[in-house]
Amino acid sequence: MEDQKIQLPSQEMLNMLIRQAAWDELRELLFEVHPADIAYLLDQLEPDDAVIVFRLLPLTVASEVLDETGSRVRQELVEQVDEERLADLLDELPMDDAAEFLEDLPDVKAARLLDLMEPDEAEDVRELLSYEDETAGRLMTRDVVALRRHWTIAETLDFLRNLEDSDSLHYLYVTDRNNHLIGVVPLRELIKAKSDQAVESIMRTDVAAVSVHADQEALAEMVARYDYYAMPVVDDDNRLVGVVTVDDVLDILADEATEDIQRLGGSEPLDQPYFAVSVFHVVRKRIVWLMLLFVAATLTGTVIREFETELETVIALGIFIPLITGTGGNAGSQTVTTVIRALALGEVQGRDILRVLGREITVALLLGTLLGLVGFLRSITWDTGYQTFYDVSIVVMLTLPLVVLWANIVATVVPIVAEKLRIDPTVVSAPMITTVVDATGLGIYFMLAKWILGL
Amino acid sequence: MEDQKIQLPSQEMLNMLIRQAAWDELRELLFEVHPADIAYLLDQLEPDDAVIVFRLLPLTVASEVLDETGSRVRQELVEQVDEERLADLLDELPMDDAAEFLEDLPDVKAARLLDLMEPDEAEDVRELLSYEDETAGRLMTRDVVALRRHWTIAETLDFLRNLEDSDSLHYLYVTDRNNHLIGVVPLRELIKAKSDQAVESIMRTDVAAVSVHADQEALAEMVARYDYYAMPVVDDDNRLVGVVTVDDVLDILADEATEDIQRLGGSEPLDQPYFAVSVFHVVRKRIVWLMLLFVAATLTGTVIREFETELETVIALGIFIPLITGTGGNAGSQTVTTVIRALALGEVQGRDILRVLGREITVALLLGTLLGLVGFLRSITWDTGYQTFYDVSIVVMLTLPLVVLWANIVATVVPIVAEKLRIDPTVVSAPMITTVVDATGLGIYFMLAKWILGL
Repeated sequence: MEDQKIQLPSQEMLNMLIRQAAWDELRELLFEVHPADIAYLLDQLEPDDAVIVFRLLPLTVASEVLDETGSRVRQELVEQVDEERLADLLDELPMDDAAEFLEDLPDVKAARLLDLMEPDEAEDVRELLSYEDETAGRLMTRDVVALRRHWTIAETLDFLRNLEDSDSLHYLYVTDRNNHLIGVVPLRELIKAKSDQAVESIMRTDVAAVSVHADQEALAEMVARYDYYAMPVVDDDNRLVGVVTVDDVLDILADEATEDIQRLGGSEPLDQPYFAVSVFHVVRKRIVWLMLLFVAATLTGTVIREFETELETVIALGIFIPLITGTGGNAGSQTVTTVIRALALGEVQGRDILRVLGREITVALLLGTLLGLVGFLRSITWDTGYQTFYDVSIVVMLTLPLVVLWANIVATVVPIVAEKLRIDPTVVSAPMITTVVDATGLGIYFMLAKWILGL
Repeated sequence: MEDQKIQLPSQEMLNMLIRQAAWDELRELLFEVHPADIAYLLDQLEPDDAVIVFRLLPLTVASEVLDETGSRVRQELVEQVDEERLADLLDELPMDDAAEFLEDLPDVKAARLLDLMEPDEAEDVRELLSYEDETAGRLMTRDVVALRRHWTIAETLDFLRNLEDSDSLHYLYVTDRNNHLIGVVPLRELIKAKSDQAVESIMRTDVAAVSVHADQEALAEMVARYDYYAMPVVDDDNRLVGVVTVDDVLDILADEATEDIQRLGGSEPLDQPYFAVSVFHVVRKRIVWLMLLFVAATLTGTVIREFETELETVIALGIFIPLITGTGGNAGSQTVTTVIRALALGEVQGRDILRVLGREITVALLLGTLLGLVGFLRSITWDTGYQTFYDVSIVVMLTLPLVVLWANIVATVVPIVAEKLRIDPTVVSAPMITTVVDATGLGIYFMLAKWILGL
């Protein structure tokens, strides 16, 4: 990375040291490197070499590297590193990261590793894994610091100094005797306070929390909205059970964007990194939509059959079929991705439907007219030798604005209505809009042709 | 939000109080609400009502609300609130948020507001605006705390207590006398240290920093990689000039995902919220690709013309044109979105091209064979009355696996080669793949037809 001030060892250097089996030099070279950077370097190596380097790392570094490395190297490590060692590494990791690691493994392997872990750590991880996937409970760490309101600042600082683990010290939460969440103390307020003040004198009581059952997307939205660095997680009785930190939210946002993008492309999300899933899994995720769209596409064939007489009479009409369907599909694809993204970001809401429709209709008429003119010029200069070609060109010119208009209307209304019906609008993919617009666009084309050419 | 423990006033309640002009009740009602939630509530109201409620808010709350509210209400506020007041609100905001606010305004308006702001604040904001868009310099706040290595913990704590502003206290940076960045002290280490220790005894020297010119995407990647809550920003001489916090990175990630999604849908990114841009801007962002793809689609017409004799002889061939092009386009769209996203996440790299190709070819053959069989069954049961229909069905069955195969190969190779050539792979949109595959897919179809039907 050119923007990074710390110089990382080059890949060539690592490869050379590996070929020379210069283990001490390698260890020394990596000693000063951040675990996240070591993970980055391993991702650049051949998987087998990555495993060799990994074995040289001390336990605490290795555990972080295991957590940060890409799916390909990670898979190699899971296969090649022995299970005792893997369990030790998992013991070192924050429990939410350990849970995330285990949930991607086959159940049998995960169960064996859990049995090999320290009983306390394993129990924490099992608890997290007992919550549903993609909820706050699964993502949180239970390692949260809770203060009592009557403590003085001096007592609080003593308490903090004696804490063994201090991963999540950015916010300090205040609970009552029943562990109900009643406030939050930012660490900076603690530093500014006098030592004989009570915690309650500096705590904020307007603390936002998420339910342990909250969906990760709602959680990410809240963290982004409040600009929090961490979000307390409470159970159904408002008891503090854990905390989700913003670094997890970064990962969630990336995952959610991946899901949205894959859905927009017309397949079910893979839910895992590209190389981590089997080919059959990929086929299963893609076949459903492909088959549905395939069946829907036969509708387009039916439209053509409907107008087969016209097509046989004016064979030149057939040449423009892909142009008409393609343009409608492309315009619809542009609109549906824009509208769906605006819905996801809250820029557009259900009740804005008419306003969005007004914009997209204007855009469609402008785009369609431009394309119609270009289409006309293109087709009259297209030397086809057909007698009827000039007339067909006029049909094409008039069809294009109507098809783009229709595509934009469908691509606007369908996702917004889906949102209103509480269906995730990203299931409305670009291929779906394309397929729907194909049949109707051709219908418009042939009807105009019939009328103008007097067929 | 159902997952939220704090009860927000309902929209009906707000509307009622506005209708009754019950300003004191409204003020009281909003007194305990988080500014981000007030922003959320305003986004639900009619814009004019939102302005009315906004005017009731005290300065510090109003400035945060201004920063958090959606583009629609924000635009209304910019138009309806007088400039003196807006300048006061901007003075209250962290300088990076003020810069972000101003950069979205017309230049003349932004210049007038800057002139009305406090000279110190305005200077800071002007400095940020002098950096290029989408760089660390534009996103950072200059409000960063720098310690000296020889200070004791007691001196440091005194220094922090006397700081006026303490927005960015999560990490404390250590600089030498020339303001070069030499280390970082996490706040929690400070709490755990003894008061007579020196700063250098607890500082970490392996501090990662970004250049003030670093692209925001690289910056976001680093923050996500290191799980940092803040990233120091240095100039070309490694002097500390500011800090970027993780809440800005959340916004960057959302913006980058928006850009990727809009590009994948086949238009240039809008770079601004949906309703904030003019219709002509939208047309300009969409017409380029639409026109290019339109011209490319005439290629498909040329392919059809090439085979017009065959089409005239066996008119039934025409009915399947949309099915063939549609299926190729859909399969290509699925693959290209998956591959591009995997490239963006670093799951797939340039040198993985053969491995990805191997997977996508296998997937294509499985999907294509399934679709071919279904296509065959569908077409032999499709009562068209054509004599040649059974033969055409066989052509369709054999064409589908080949077209899906070809679509997947194109959709894999093009974005990966783009990445290798250092072209942003997201410019390879789903519509682009669809258009390319349309023409070639039809070529495959007609050649198979010629061969099998003996035309």
